[in-house]
Amino acid sequence: MSIKIGIYGYGNLGRGIENAIKQNEDMSLVAVFTRRDPATLKINTPDALVLRADEVENYKDKIDVLILCGGSATDLPVQTPQMAEMFTVVDSFDTHAKIPEHFKNVDEASKKGGNVALISAGWDPGMFSLNRLYASAILPEGKDYTFWGKGISQGHSDAIRRIEGVKNAKQYTIPIEAALEAVRSGECPEFTTREKHLRECFVVAEDGADKARIEKEIKEMPNYFADYDTTVHFITEEELIRDHSGIPHGGFVIRTGKTGLNKEHNHIIEYSLKLDSNPEFTASVIVCFARAVKRLKDEGVSGCKTVFDIPPAYLSAKSYDELIKTML
Amino acid sequence: MSIKIGIYGYGNLGRGIENAIKQNEDMSLVAVFTRRDPATLKINTPDALVLRADEVENYKDKIDVLILCGGSATDLPVQTPQMAEMFTVVDSFDTHAKIPEHFKNVDEASKKGGNVALISAGWDPGMFSLNRLYASAILPEGKDYTFWGKGISQGHSDAIRRIEGVKNAKQYTIPIEAALEAVRSGECPEFTTREKHLRECFVVAEDGADKARIEKEIKEMPNYFADYDTTVHFITEEELIRDHSGIPHGGFVIRTGKTGLNKEHNHIIEYSLKLDSNPEFTASVIVCFARAVKRLKDEGVSGCKTVFDIPPAYLSAKSYDELIKTML
Repeated sequence: MSIKIGIYGYGNLGRGIENAIKQNEDMSLVAVFTRRDPATLKINTPDALVLRADEVENYKDKIDVLILCGGSATDLPVQTPQMAEMFTVVDSFDTHAKIPEHFKNVDEASKKGGNVALISAGWDPGMFSLNRLYASAILPEGKDYTFWGKGISQGHSDAIRRIEGVKNAKQYTIPIEAALEAVRSGECPEFTTREKHLRECFVVAEDGADKARIEKEIKEMPNYFADYDTTVHFITEEELIRDHSGIPHGGFVIRTGKTGLNKEHNHIIEYSLKLDSNPEFTASVIVCFARAVKRLKDEGVSGCKTVFDIPPAYLSAKSYDELIKTML
Repeated sequence: MSIKIGIYGYGNLGRGIENAIKQNEDMSLVAVFTRRDPATLKINTPDALVLRADEVENYKDKIDVLILCGGSATDLPVQTPQMAEMFTVVDSFDTHAKIPEHFKNVDEASKKGGNVALISAGWDPGMFSLNRLYASAILPEGKDYTFWGKGISQGHSDAIRRIEGVKNAKQYTIPIEAALEAVRSGECPEFTTREKHLRECFVVAEDGADKARIEKEIKEMPNYFADYDTTVHFITEEELIRDHSGIPHGGFVIRTGKTGLNKEHNHIIEYSLKLDSNPEFTASVIVCFARAVKRLKDEGVSGCKTVFDIPPAYLSAKSYDELIKTML
């Protein structure tokens, strides 16, 4: 029987979920819930409904897993606990520092509702977290490193757009190749922020804007740019649309560590992603975890879970026999 | 309280387990069981016992997890079911084609004894299997590839040593860089055996042996070498010992796949290992899974398990709170 999915919020991530469901034969999309006027929303699944967000509570018995596609800043801290009381849910909450607090709130709500709620699915947090955990468990005496990019950082692009005189902007986070190589050498280097990543900005200035001032404001912006080597390119809106419309991303999780009676042997574990579409890949990960939480819910489990709790076999549509025959 | 480990079989893998236990503060080695005369065996853990293999049954209440370090060809098919009746066990059974049969035998025995038995831990099967599973669940429309090396293949080295006139030999399996690049391009290439890996052999011939005949026999050996581009270097015993005494290995699991409404986006997931010591890394993985099966046993679980069944958090010595705070 098909796993019935609801999508709550229909931005880039919500559309990615819709596409990912089409790639998984054991799933079907029941409805998209939106804060916009449903009449204005065109989706790509003919037999799915488009409904107002406040109608979601009428679908408690018609949806197995509700996937929350709002933002981490203001949406998910409210929506995930709220929805977890009514539904088994998955979110992609990605404010790392606030995960323990979010976990606690969602755990209470989901237990109250007798539901499973998996938070922080995606690739970081998500697959990168899993790789940090596996690698550090395997090599207790070692050090791990996460690099991001090359890819578009939405937060940094937004920060540039808030500068006076900026019409549009895209910012790429780029890992520094020399730093990656130093890590892979097994020397366990320590890096400053500047030594790990570069920031490259493509900016469309408004007519007559003071480009020198804009460049200075970007490069000196605390937290976002001041600690990095940042390059700024001024381009036209046409160039921005032509060359920088994608949402690529990716990165590396590398752990190096030592084994042996005298720590004489080095080992390198490396996991990397190269993604043409950040939201679509995130969606593809979330959809696997939706399959897993459905199974946990069917087993009578409730409460907040993370990627760390899920037996890997639960993510696959394949039978266990097939998995051990073809993948082990 | 410390997890009490027994090691059954003290070759390269058994010694690796002993070293790995020293790196994990929540574990201690109780005893090594050996088919050799215990008096002849020197181990590196002063407070652990060295005992005859047939004494193991007297240690049922003194060991939490017995780690089976025998070979997959003849030892483990017998030992794992036998020991799983008495102990919670982990093995590294790596004959991929026979895993379903081994699983069945071990499952029966471990259920009979009320124990947990985890089979096929290590890196392939093991971490590579996990990465094949995760990546194929995330990108259902894609293709995955496993490459091995550069590393020493014990089986191929042994095969060369059986040739008349060969005194000693080491064989390296080497992935072909062009094949790796073709995979990473996202083109989903199909490869012949010859296109994926090279085989490089370092051979010490006996005095007066016919080297041309040896080289021909190696290169034409069915299954082992005939389907590969193989190079043979004749070297002295001193050179073999000086330059080829290590047991390095590693490899790559890469999956490429597509997402998007019109499959317009490519993604690459890559996991790689570069290991100075194959048995020590395998041991490090096994020891994490020993921690996990102890926990399952304490929860009242019994039966055969694989890496696909284990919630990742169970592998770590860190508390769940610490994991979500520092790694998620």
